Amino acid sequence: MPTPSDFDRLCVVLVSTRNPLNIGAAARAMSNLGFLRLRVVNPYEASFREARSAVGAAPLLAKAEQYSSVAEAVADCSLVVGTTAVAKRELNHPLRLLKDAAPVIRKRLRAGGRVALLFGSEKRGLSNDDFSHCHWLLHVPAREEHTSMNLGQAAAVCLYELARSSGRAGNRAKSKAISKTEQPKSATSAELERITAMLIDALRASGYLGERAVAAKEEKIRRMVRRLELSSADAELWLGMLRQMLWKMKSPTKE
Amino acid sequence: MPTPSDFDRLCVVLVSTRNPLNIGAAARAMSNLGFLRLRVVNPYEASFREARSAVGAAPLLAKAEQYSSVAEAVADCSLVVGTTAVAKRELNHPLRLLKDAAPVIRKRLRAGGRVALLFGSEKRGLSNDDFSHCHWLLHVPAREEHTSMNLGQAAAVCLYELARSSGRAGNRAKSKAISKTEQPKSATSAELERITAMLIDALRASGYLGERAVAAKEEKIRRMVRRLELSSADAELWLGMLRQMLWKMKSPTKE
Repeated sequence: MPTPSDFDRLCVVLVSTRNPLNIGAAARAMSNLGFLRLRVVNPYEASFREARSAVGAAPLLAKAEQYSSVAEAVADCSLVVGTTAVAKRELNHPLRLLKDAAPVIRKRLRAGGRVALLFGSEKRGLSNDDFSHCHWLLHVPAREEHTSMNLGQAAAVCLYELARSSGRAGNRAKSKAISKTEQPKSATSAELERITAMLIDALRASGYLGERAVAAKEEKIRRMVRRLELSSADAELWLGMLRQMLWKMKSPTKE
Repeated sequence: MPTPSDFDRLCVVLVSTRNPLNIGAAARAMSNLGFLRLRVVNPYEASFREARSAVGAAPLLAKAEQYSSVAEAVADCSLVVGTTAVAKRELNHPLRLLKDAAPVIRKRLRAGGRVALLFGSEKRGLSNDDFSHCHWLLHVPAREEHTSMNLGQAAAVCLYELARSSGRAGNRAKSKAISKTEQPKSATSAELERITAMLIDALRASGYLGERAVAAKEEKIRRMVRRLELSSADAELWLGMLRQMLWKMKSPTKE
């Protein structure tokens, strides 16, 4: 299972990115998902400066490292993975779908290796020369009619998949906390039976059920109350509401 | 694995989105990942028009449906899921991490139900009133120091996870056959909203709620009704019971 320091060994490398919004978006996704090492190769200088204001990602962008070639940018990495929308270009590289690529990358990170994940320019993607620095390529599956993803979104999806089953301490604690709040205490049979009785009383007072007990109809109400799968707290709420309605139906109306 | 027609039953609902780039980005991710039904609630009019030029997503944006309230936008959906960055706000809803939420959503789509996935505005996310129309909430886990994701990126990640899936064809056929016979048809949001309105009327008539609308209390009732996860048949039953009780509370008692 990767640790935060494993994540720190993944470098996102943006090659010849033009649009400052895209650099900013990639940085923001990195910051959201816990990958903090950004490297840029030959960005348009003005774009790179402008990108530094991306919401919440300023510290990450301030620490970004700039290189003038892919070779330099990936020099210290033992695994280099290029991203591609595939489609037309003839690939001379092994290609993995994102979800199959992620475990391989995580394994390398866990083993202490440094991994580079390359994204190309908005217009042309990575060049064949860029690819030649890669061990293999990664592809985010998309609809055939529209394969080309926005750079910031492709980065978000790739990093999400890498972080997805990492069980990082933060996420683990959070999902534990969530499952605690997600599973409120279920109502006991006694609570459900109190609701059933109160509801039958109310239905009788309203004329929905006749005055005399008809077992089959009562059973139908009882089953219906069970199907609600109420929590203990909601059972309490329903009891209160029904009690008030019952009281109202039984009290003489002043007109 | 869901089929393209299953995907067609998922509606992405953007609520009060301000930035045309974000509407366009969400639409582009939808188009990339194969989800083609977009609904917008109260977008800034100019933004919505401007967004129509998003790369490759123009056909999808041209077919987008516009609504003036969340209730109308989700009326035909039997499962409504809100997205949230959680963090500060106190949630009164069950919360699922994205990867745990996806199978639940896919299951509902496979069973033939229509599902709405709600995204809030860039500034404030979804409001408590928006949440009150949701059955439960979905959260993309992010770094604690920077939980707020860009709208287009959050949409891309959610839709990627929904499309990701790993089921085999054989299992698919089997689970479809099972789910068709075992799962009663779930109540639509329109049916749940009718129950909510009737229950609020009844609670008002009984004195449980005051005569004047108090939004927070109505939201609490609306959430509670969603938690019941009613079938269409049970929704009908509840409407009948509440209608009768309401009639009784409003009619003068003969003593």
